[in-house]
Amino acid sequence: MLRIALDAMGGDAAPRETVQGAVLAVQDAELRRIAGGPFQVVLVGRREEIERELPHDASFPLDLLPIVDAREVVTMEDHPVQACKKKKDSSIVRCHELLKNKEVAACVSAGNSGATLAAALFTCGRLEGVSRPAIVTMVPSVQGVSVLVDAGANMDCRGKHLLQFALMGEAYARTALSFKSPRVGLLSIGEEESKGNDLVFEAQAFLKQVPFNYIGNVEGRDIVNGKCDVIVCDGFTGNVALKSIEGVGELVFTLLKKELSANLFSMLGGFLSASAFRRFKKMIDYREYGGAPLLGIDGISLISHGKSNAYAMKNAVRAVLRCVQYDLNASIQKAILEHGQVQDAKPGPTDL
Amino acid sequence: MLRIALDAMGGDAAPRETVQGAVLAVQDAELRRIAGGPFQVVLVGRREEIERELPHDASFPLDLLPIVDAREVVTMEDHPVQACKKKKDSSIVRCHELLKNKEVAACVSAGNSGATLAAALFTCGRLEGVSRPAIVTMVPSVQGVSVLVDAGANMDCRGKHLLQFALMGEAYARTALSFKSPRVGLLSIGEEESKGNDLVFEAQAFLKQVPFNYIGNVEGRDIVNGKCDVIVCDGFTGNVALKSIEGVGELVFTLLKKELSANLFSMLGGFLSASAFRRFKKMIDYREYGGAPLLGIDGISLISHGKSNAYAMKNAVRAVLRCVQYDLNASIQKAILEHGQVQDAKPGPTDL
Repeated sequence: MLRIALDAMGGDAAPRETVQGAVLAVQDAELRRIAGGPFQVVLVGRREEIERELPHDASFPLDLLPIVDAREVVTMEDHPVQACKKKKDSSIVRCHELLKNKEVAACVSAGNSGATLAAALFTCGRLEGVSRPAIVTMVPSVQGVSVLVDAGANMDCRGKHLLQFALMGEAYARTALSFKSPRVGLLSIGEEESKGNDLVFEAQAFLKQVPFNYIGNVEGRDIVNGKCDVIVCDGFTGNVALKSIEGVGELVFTLLKKELSANLFSMLGGFLSASAFRRFKKMIDYREYGGAPLLGIDGISLISHGKSNAYAMKNAVRAVLRCVQYDLNASIQKAILEHGQVQDAKPGPTDL
Repeated sequence: MLRIALDAMGGDAAPRETVQGAVLAVQDAELRRIAGGPFQVVLVGRREEIERELPHDASFPLDLLPIVDAREVVTMEDHPVQACKKKKDSSIVRCHELLKNKEVAACVSAGNSGATLAAALFTCGRLEGVSRPAIVTMVPSVQGVSVLVDAGANMDCRGKHLLQFALMGEAYARTALSFKSPRVGLLSIGEEESKGNDLVFEAQAFLKQVPFNYIGNVEGRDIVNGKCDVIVCDGFTGNVALKSIEGVGELVFTLLKKELSANLFSMLGGFLSASAFRRFKKMIDYREYGGAPLLGIDGISLISHGKSNAYAMKNAVRAVLRCVQYDLNASIQKAILEHGQVQDAKPGPTDL
């Protein structure tokens, strides 16, 4: 039976929402279809705290939610690397040990995202030929969704890293998200090849030689306007862009709410269009997407939003099930070995 | 009498909207108050095309809109630097010659923004001690407006450049926008000092020593959430963030429109709340802000959006009038000479 590990102690509302998410996940018809039948979610964390949140209904199939006891918890304040080294009995580290030992097919954590990255890297290691694992994030767009890689794992990058991010992001969109021939764009300040910074110019040369649907430079607006499926950038730029997008989403609701309560007409209007707003809000809600998988790790590990509720956790399990069932890592491995082994023309300060 | 030069040929709807903008500007009571009385807008471009757009009403004070003939036009396709060198009789170059010769106090162009930057740099030169002029842009935020510098003039930067951007942006917010003790933040991927890329770490050391209201690292969401007044970053990151923000603004309207037309209730709701939407749209409309001044140039030069209409052009004139009247460049000059003369610890590939 397919097994997924869930860091029951990770996230602002853990273990309540994490356990509830697992309860939803193992009963969900769509998720069972993806998994090819019933599957287990292994709850990793303090046994007594997890048990308190489990359903007491005798008809619930508790065998689908086994517990692996882990006494320590990595907090949001912990230093990622030190926490992984010192808190060996933490839920984050234990999840990745299960993954490394093939006791689970994938794992999910909504805890300290730096620590999740560090645990994945130190415990599971990288796929062959991958120089830097990256975080891929889904972003709502006019046509549904686009993916951005790297969303924040790697600050100072070289062209060869961006090439690998592109290969991994393309494989992710093609397998786990079932995009046909995803369009891959390099994030820059204009569509013209002459526009960009040194990193963009370095990456362009590599990307042109890869046999996927590379559409050249794209701009910030193209992250959400449907022009592109996979947006490639360094983790600093990606993180700034994503948080800017989130910030505008929040601003829009604040301003609209204020304007809609300005007078009786607009209040009535807001009331009548409430369901439209709800649908709109759902479209731009990160909880729908479940989280951000790590690409390039020897194993499927996904970082969930710290504010994830049970619904978001269920969607996170769905996301890793898809990665497992569509064999994401085999696609990444193939792409990296065939097209990802290049050297930048000159070594730089951030060269590995 | 105060004189402002306007590139009448610049922008998608020039010379119609540029001339109409000048007509609105010279008659506007608020602008006259800022200017301390009537002022002139010098229309630079092809005389006959400009004259065609001028009011034929005998009561209109045409003496407030003198024309300076310039036969060439820099197009959006022109290479910025080459265009400035070859098209000496272009409206963009002529505007900046008027500025250099003190025949006007400031100039505005909605044409090729790279060419405007090049013309400003080559014709007017930099203020003493400024290593790289930068573009400052206003962004709508929860509390009204924040400014971001650099919005796209400088791709690969060093810490010392970011220090100068911060000094110039702070001076702009304090003088032209009348912010009291503006809060200056360094754009990064987290608030903690330990988060960022090499450039951020390099800039942090300089920014801590400057006697303005430096609040440390800020994130992408802080560009719009009112936490910060002046956001400092390199031009690549700034441009990506701004275009991401614009993209989400467009996405929001597309999705909301779609959702509001989904059924009769929501359509009626949308109709009743139409004025709320209009007010909201106005808040996030770049036309309200007029454009992006160049900071660090020996003269006041402002880049307007290529899609500017007459209203936006009028607001652009207002923006430069404020820069002139509040003596922006004196403030920048003082800040740069007192606090902007530093050297990065080690030279880098992007060092000047």
